[in-house]
Amino acid sequence: MSGTAPIKPLRLVAVAGGTHGNEMSGVTLVKHWLRDSTELLRDTFTAVPLLANPKATEKCVRYNEMDLNRCFTRDILFSSGSQDEPYEVKRAREINRVFGPRGSMNAYDMILDLHNTTSNMGICLIISEAHKPLEMHVCHYIQTHLPNFNPRIYVYMEHGSELYDLASVGKAGIGFELGPQPQGVVRGDLLQSMKTLVKVTLDFINQFNQGMEFPAFEADVYQRVGHVEFPLSSDGEVSAVVHPSLQDQDFSLLRPGDPMFLSLDDKIIPYAGDKPIYPVFINEAAYYEKNIAFIVVEKIQLSVPALSSTSQKVAS
Amino acid sequence: MSGTAPIKPLRLVAVAGGTHGNEMSGVTLVKHWLRDSTELLRDTFTAVPLLANPKATEKCVRYNEMDLNRCFTRDILFSSGSQDEPYEVKRAREINRVFGPRGSMNAYDMILDLHNTTSNMGICLIISEAHKPLEMHVCHYIQTHLPNFNPRIYVYMEHGSELYDLASVGKAGIGFELGPQPQGVVRGDLLQSMKTLVKVTLDFINQFNQGMEFPAFEADVYQRVGHVEFPLSSDGEVSAVVHPSLQDQDFSLLRPGDPMFLSLDDKIIPYAGDKPIYPVFINEAAYYEKNIAFIVVEKIQLSVPALSSTSQKVAS
Repeated sequence: MSGTAPIKPLRLVAVAGGTHGNEMSGVTLVKHWLRDSTELLRDTFTAVPLLANPKATEKCVRYNEMDLNRCFTRDILFSSGSQDEPYEVKRAREINRVFGPRGSMNAYDMILDLHNTTSNMGICLIISEAHKPLEMHVCHYIQTHLPNFNPRIYVYMEHGSELYDLASVGKAGIGFELGPQPQGVVRGDLLQSMKTLVKVTLDFINQFNQGMEFPAFEADVYQRVGHVEFPLSSDGEVSAVVHPSLQDQDFSLLRPGDPMFLSLDDKIIPYAGDKPIYPVFINEAAYYEKNIAFIVVEKIQLSVPALSSTSQKVAS
Repeated sequence: MSGTAPIKPLRLVAVAGGTHGNEMSGVTLVKHWLRDSTELLRDTFTAVPLLANPKATEKCVRYNEMDLNRCFTRDILFSSGSQDEPYEVKRAREINRVFGPRGSMNAYDMILDLHNTTSNMGICLIISEAHKPLEMHVCHYIQTHLPNFNPRIYVYMEHGSELYDLASVGKAGIGFELGPQPQGVVRGDLLQSMKTLVKVTLDFINQFNQGMEFPAFEADVYQRVGHVEFPLSSDGEVSAVVHPSLQDQDFSLLRPGDPMFLSLDDKIIPYAGDKPIYPVFINEAAYYEKNIAFIVVEKIQLSVPALSSTSQKVAS
């Protein structure tokens, strides 16, 4: 039978929220679990809640000095550090010490990281690379158990880029990205959806630990390949906004000639590429500072091998 | 014929945006008009664009030290001031000096102030008091010329409270409150709606200045009468969120027994009042710091007398 080599049961599991301090589903759930972690208990393990950026959460801002979720690079994690570094750099090293170190035997087996976006991303599951069988099986399990959520799998690392996110500290890591939700707001519907996602993921891990086998499957993933920036006027100000017909159309094809931007003097700026693209994270608030109007992804079909744990023999 | 005494033509008109620096429709439009004010020209006057809180706009936050749109109180405007006051206090006095002083002959004839909300408020027209014929005529003109916008009139001053908003510096003032839109995001559809609202209002002023008469009418207004706070746990953290069935239902009746909040351990908290209420500004991001879950309004029907300008005789 084709499959990956059996993996050890996952005992060390963390659920992070507040990696961005104004993404309120995760902030609210993690604060709740820090008071009462009953929902994180399973037969074979207990997940640990982590309020990742307490200072940003306190201020209800994305970050204090630097985006924490871009700080988990090799340079930052494995350099010695100094006194006057940004808060988030210190915090990234601290998280890596406790939940990693990344790449080591001691690292957590699985880290879930809870995010929100102002874009109409629906329920999006984020992994660093496509060829990660354990993560892909979690995503597939969510897709088959929560079909109404229509969860999509997004792969954030572009060709040649390196890991930088909090979840990468663990041996395995997945981000849950739910939207649309304004920064600083908790929507009850998304809060419930996020709770359900975490529940189903912990159920998967529990079944995996108890020796359940997960067969091979095929899946679509959306691989990040680039981004499109807002048009600027000569004085550096944004001169056009996302066209209303593109707004909220994340994961829908944008075809050559389709309206892409609307200038402030009411002119349509069409998409001028020569092949259709999939825009995602359309009009995300946090990307304005980088002048990013949306991210471009490619849809790829993958074959994922079967998965089993080393505890399988015990269960059979 | 019953009507108010004729009013002088309105020559001094300002359109403010960025009173809250992360409400991006107004910020974007006012920056655009500061570069090119063609859209603000009319035969009888030219409206002046005002970027009200440049420091908050620069940082893309609601305010720097204090909410500017709560600084236009008698105490602040008419005291002498000192060096170490918050930025917004100084800025409020400055705006009052240039566009007021409030209550004086020199004050601007009309100030429009452009706002966004994360709540599902649609197109909302905000005035300080219901008994303001000129403002009410502008609102009615918008309602009759833009019926698809379904614009509602909101009266913000509760019984016994005092003026505090930027628009109150003028002889007349109206806020345009458009939502839902996340903080820090420009939605193309709302940007276009706000542009249209300003256009139609300037058209009204131009017609008024040219001597057009506006007959009496009846109108519904929503008068603020109170607010409802989020439930808190013993440690002061929010213990429940707006119930999904109440979310986005601004201006719809909430009846006794209807779900109001959903606790973090999944219990429904119903509305326990003894008569139906109209919630508005449901789950507005900026009100979290005051722990306000929503504002309560009463629907009131008003009779508004006819309106004419002193230039009427010239035109007839």
